[in-house]
Amino acid sequence: MKVSALAAKGPNQKLEPFSYEMGELGAEQVDVKVLNCGICHSDLSMMNNEWGMTAYPIVPGHEIIGEIVAAGNAVKNIKVGDKVGVGWFSGSCMSCHECMDGSHHLCSKAEYTIGGRHGGFADYVRSHWSWAIPLPEGIDLAKAGPLLCGGITVFNPILIAGVKATDKVGVIGIGGLGHMALKFLNKWGCEVVAFSSNPSKKESILAMGATKVVDSTNPEELAKIAGTLNFILNTTNVTLDWNSYLVALAPKGKFHNVGAVLEPLAIPAFTLLTGEKSVSGSPLGSPALTRTMLEFCVRHDIYPITEEYPMSKANEALEHLKSGKARFRIVLKN
Amino acid sequence: MKVSALAAKGPNQKLEPFSYEMGELGAEQVDVKVLNCGICHSDLSMMNNEWGMTAYPIVPGHEIIGEIVAAGNAVKNIKVGDKVGVGWFSGSCMSCHECMDGSHHLCSKAEYTIGGRHGGFADYVRSHWSWAIPLPEGIDLAKAGPLLCGGITVFNPILIAGVKATDKVGVIGIGGLGHMALKFLNKWGCEVVAFSSNPSKKESILAMGATKVVDSTNPEELAKIAGTLNFILNTTNVTLDWNSYLVALAPKGKFHNVGAVLEPLAIPAFTLLTGEKSVSGSPLGSPALTRTMLEFCVRHDIYPITEEYPMSKANEALEHLKSGKARFRIVLKN
Repeated sequence: MKVSALAAKGPNQKLEPFSYEMGELGAEQVDVKVLNCGICHSDLSMMNNEWGMTAYPIVPGHEIIGEIVAAGNAVKNIKVGDKVGVGWFSGSCMSCHECMDGSHHLCSKAEYTIGGRHGGFADYVRSHWSWAIPLPEGIDLAKAGPLLCGGITVFNPILIAGVKATDKVGVIGIGGLGHMALKFLNKWGCEVVAFSSNPSKKESILAMGATKVVDSTNPEELAKIAGTLNFILNTTNVTLDWNSYLVALAPKGKFHNVGAVLEPLAIPAFTLLTGEKSVSGSPLGSPALTRTMLEFCVRHDIYPITEEYPMSKANEALEHLKSGKARFRIVLKN
Repeated sequence: MKVSALAAKGPNQKLEPFSYEMGELGAEQVDVKVLNCGICHSDLSMMNNEWGMTAYPIVPGHEIIGEIVAAGNAVKNIKVGDKVGVGWFSGSCMSCHECMDGSHHLCSKAEYTIGGRHGGFADYVRSHWSWAIPLPEGIDLAKAGPLLCGGITVFNPILIAGVKATDKVGVIGIGGLGHMALKFLNKWGCEVVAFSSNPSKKESILAMGATKVVDSTNPEELAKIAGTLNFILNTTNVTLDWNSYLVALAPKGKFHNVGAVLEPLAIPAFTLLTGEKSVSGSPLGSPALTRTMLEFCVRHDIYPITEEYPMSKANEALEHLKSGKARFRIVLKN
């Protein structure tokens, strides 16, 4: 099958029309007609080869909502005509310890949707059946795309940390990822502190589910909540004053990082030690947890706040994302 | 009551005879006749004010085995004549969230046995009843002292991390703390890797319960076990190549630090993220867990390997500890 897509041919280049031949469908694979596709910051990072693993031309797009148009003869669980979502991963070995243990997202052979194959800024994409997540009935197809990457990225840590309804939690960075985290944690039943460097957004942040907004640029405001939070989720990818957040944690508190911070985190051993605290990280989440998350979203009407662009205006949308003005997640519609 | 003790009057000074008046016994306190007392590296750190919180003169000693000789009228659970152990802490507020939650070791008002009061290089010490841990029947009094500080310091992390018998674990630094960790983890049922910078100790390390000894100075040996360990306990207090140990962890693996490393830990965010890993720390453990540990020790005949000195030779014993030749924990006998 011939696919019409948009690709970047090198770092810092605009997307251009690009067509490629999909090749033979694997027995365990499905082809998905792309209805829409979210834009994630990691599309930009990959387009610019920031992580040193980009193969050009690259077709970005890994927050895909689509419909199955072809299925290999060993496909399980889904069939032609089903609506599915495809995120950062679109394949894993299915037989290693992590895959057999339900943690396919930790498979060392996991395949990236926009590395090794081509992504969702296109009319079709391909995926292993396990990573084409069936969409629950009643889900809003126009807004669900970003849940497949940004959403599961902030949902998984809540489970990893064992956050309880009685916990007090914090979210750093109220952008594409952070605003979804606020919505999840609000429905979790927690007291939710939003750390924002832009307190002018306060009213809108409270409307997303935060209980309280703390100005992260003000050390005094951070000091005021010292020792109170059971869990802090960092969604930014810049170097922060880690200790001031570790100090904001209650004893036994957990600081979890999903931002791909390039510089090593400088963590004071004494703060971890004396407060029995931890610093952790995670990538995305498993297919099973992604299914669970989507059900949770439908039950609680949780969606990202999105702006919609036609696929043909992808370059314009990417500029909007780069400007930092996207509120909060952009979806490209075919 | 007049107490005869040994005290340092300033940093890098030898211990000298020192006597002090204990003052009135609090209603919730007990006085303990010291039978013997272990020496811990943190006695040295405190004697030399390495952590900036030493009050001179300081009487070191916080791995105390003794007998209760006086009890205030509000003392619970123990009585005059009982044998008890007293460790790093000898008091906590008993009413804050952490105390009420069973985590008295995380009480922000917890009192140090060798800070604010005087320690166990003496004929008597004082403790709140809750921190004078009753000793189970059959325990070896001559060797149990170091369990109260070094022992619980490495026992607590095993519980925090939820280590299971099926786990593969590693211990960095096979000294006073590390050799007790090997014994615990062996009885836990784990495959236990000992990281040692001194592979000439291999046979004795295997005898302590390690399944395998890895030369921590050899990057190739570390690389060989990449991705295999569910839990690594670092008992050293020096800066290590953190990433090489994080890489040795299996997906979802936990790196736990009990060494008071002074320099911040430089932790690569990508390694935490991609492997869903964590870095944590802890201080000592709660009174309830200390009781549980002592029962576990009696059940499995777990004791530190000790060298015994008379209390009168405390200075000689401290020199032996400083030389790095102690095998592995020194106990001073009254």
